[in-house]
Amino acid sequence: MKLYEYEPAPNPRLVRIFLAEKGIDVPREQVDISKGENRRDEFLTLNPMGGLPVLELDDGTCIAETAAICRYFEALQPEPSLMGRDALGIARIEMWRRRMELEIALPIMLCFRNTHEYFSGRYPQFPDYGEACEKQARKRLQWLDGELAGREFIAGDDYTVADITALIGIDFGRMVNIRPDELPHLKRWHEEVSARPSASA
Amino acid sequence: MKLYEYEPAPNPRLVRIFLAEKGIDVPREQVDISKGENRRDEFLTLNPMGGLPVLELDDGTCIAETAAICRYFEALQPEPSLMGRDALGIARIEMWRRRMELEIALPIMLCFRNTHEYFSGRYPQFPDYGEACEKQARKRLQWLDGELAGREFIAGDDYTVADITALIGIDFGRMVNIRPDELPHLKRWHEEVSARPSASA
Repeated sequence: MKLYEYEPAPNPRLVRIFLAEKGIDVPREQVDISKGENRRDEFLTLNPMGGLPVLELDDGTCIAETAAICRYFEALQPEPSLMGRDALGIARIEMWRRRMELEIALPIMLCFRNTHEYFSGRYPQFPDYGEACEKQARKRLQWLDGELAGREFIAGDDYTVADITALIGIDFGRMVNIRPDELPHLKRWHEEVSARPSASA
Repeated sequence: MKLYEYEPAPNPRLVRIFLAEKGIDVPREQVDISKGENRRDEFLTLNPMGGLPVLELDDGTCIAETAAICRYFEALQPEPSLMGRDALGIARIEMWRRRMELEIALPIMLCFRNTHEYFSGRYPQFPDYGEACEKQARKRLQWLDGELAGREFIAGDDYTVADITALIGIDFGRMVNIRPDELPHLKRWHEEVSARPSASA
């Protein structure tokens, strides 16, 4: 088993934190996105979408997509549970994981991709759209702050994959100057999840 | 139990097809997106994101997010399986479900949102970005056509939630004149999944 990843990127970090919480160790190989290594034919054979991370099993089977890799390890080793145990828990955590991915991490990444000089020349940028994504991300963080006034973690009383998804998205926000500092409940949550040993995985 | 939905929208259709395949019947209530009913306070109490569908349980608990609702019913009633039985099956189907959602259905919907007159005045549109999304969707459909040359369904030999996700995305493509007709393997697959009784749910 081998995990193709890239240290500085948010999605590989999500899987590293997930594995650290589970206490699972997987050999890793770096694919340098900044050098376009993920766009080379050799890598596209593993994942035609070009995204990282990708988990390669011993028989050569490849699992791409961060959430699919998490689900693989959750099924292989259910404890400590990060994606729910019963139907309602599974659904509630998936709802929150998706909200964190699609309403917070995604607009932050789309803002970065469409406004940051890193992508200038690599990708057609739409700065107006990027700014709208930033506005949307800030609005959702404000809403999330209110949610966290009433509970410890994103999806309830337990730390789950929804927290990891929010953490990697919000930390990546630094790249476009989005920070949790001015929102008190989000700041409290952020300090708490960042203090876990897994956060530096 | 009650499903808040809107007949013409793609995500509610995904859940209807999923439930039809499972043989599960859930009472439904229409929330008219065209009249902005999903942006009213009454609905935002059920789902602050404003998205449809939302599943309300008898105790008032609400599950939003299409994929979370599917996962709820998959856990409640595993057969016929639409999301995988073992770790590898679960991960493979989730990988393909996500590819269909994020690489095909999402760019089609973003194209619609940013270029179609339906959203003119309702939402700030970024037509250039919408056109880039259309290009991306067409590129991915071409790739998917090649994938379907080698197997019957999106994620392998069995019909799964990945097929339903692709179907609702591709059928919605008509709104922006994206059709599967010119791609032979995609056309074969589309005819096959459209012929299932669930497709008209």
